[in-house]
Amino acid sequence: MQTSPFRTVEERKVEREQKREAVLRAAVRLFNTHGFHAASLDDVAASLGVSKPTIYHYLGNKDQVLFECVTRGIEQLRDAASAAREHPGSGLDRLRSFLRHYAEITMGDFGRCVIRTSDEVLSAESADRFRELKREIDGAMRALIAEGIADGSIAPVNVKLAAFTLAGALNWPARWHRTDGGESAETVATQMVDILTGGLAPR
Amino acid sequence: MQTSPFRTVEERKVEREQKREAVLRAAVRLFNTHGFHAASLDDVAASLGVSKPTIYHYLGNKDQVLFECVTRGIEQLRDAASAAREHPGSGLDRLRSFLRHYAEITMGDFGRCVIRTSDEVLSAESADRFRELKREIDGAMRALIAEGIADGSIAPVNVKLAAFTLAGALNWPARWHRTDGGESAETVATQMVDILTGGLAPR
Repeated sequence: MQTSPFRTVEERKVEREQKREAVLRAAVRLFNTHGFHAASLDDVAASLGVSKPTIYHYLGNKDQVLFECVTRGIEQLRDAASAAREHPGSGLDRLRSFLRHYAEITMGDFGRCVIRTSDEVLSAESADRFRELKREIDGAMRALIAEGIADGSIAPVNVKLAAFTLAGALNWPARWHRTDGGESAETVATQMVDILTGGLAPR
Repeated sequence: MQTSPFRTVEERKVEREQKREAVLRAAVRLFNTHGFHAASLDDVAASLGVSKPTIYHYLGNKDQVLFECVTRGIEQLRDAASAAREHPGSGLDRLRSFLRHYAEITMGDFGRCVIRTSDEVLSAESADRFRELKREIDGAMRALIAEGIADGSIAPVNVKLAAFTLAGALNWPARWHRTDGGESAETVATQMVDILTGGLAPR
């Protein structure tokens, strides 16, 4: 049977989605490598061998592209929080599960972009929404800590400060961890979470 | 006895030092509040009611002013490391002393500037020197952790990752802690260090 040279509606939809995804991945890598200001949509287009209007077609202007990148990162963190809530065991076990995923995500392309993007580089509207999304992740972290305190698996602490301490520590690798060589993201995540939950003093 | 209207050499030296200090403090606060790019030496001059050439006279150009601010912050961290090495007790006690001061310094004007300044905004030469100074502080942190492991007061950990975990957590308040209202820098520092050294799980 001969294959038709015309693609079906479904095939065209899948292809469009794949192209959009390729543009988004190229953009987030350039933003992470060169910084948002230094990276241009021309560079993104060039890295894919397409024209700048193609980028606009799939994702919109530079602010919209960046906002899509950070939203994708936040969604990964949100999914990690949902998965952690289903995790069996104590509150501390659930928090540990979230923290390990949190660390791995923030060493990945989209998570790294969440950490490296300051609110000021986004448009006022996108920045508001970005802050809201980050507050949601902070809220999920605090809820997990509070549940651990409630079931006695976490020592009583100032929940807000504990959440900031954990997030601060785990956001840091987004600025120094290299994917080429050195410890894997998984190793870094596991060891950091062990230190944060177990402490430095011997038990 | 009548006071001479002419100042002595010593008085003039002190006055010069005080003026230089006032310029530096005004500059660091503007950099921290508005960001390095948005803050101009004109703003620094205006906030002191002096002219821009006066700023140049005391501190030099914008890169030199910023470099002086971050150097001052690094010196405070270096002094904290020296003081911690003299601290009585175990390696963990010495590390705790350093961490508490580290956190308080990075919530102060010059320390905050150290954390908020990305290498890219400095001239190539200043950026190289800044990186070198930061490596020195990282080295001091690692040495204190290694000593604690050696005397058994700190559990065996990957020293590099532990230093990054501690620094990451303690650098974070430089981005969110406000001096107006809320917990004092001392309270934040103490509680964060308790979490980092004691861990979240009950002991």
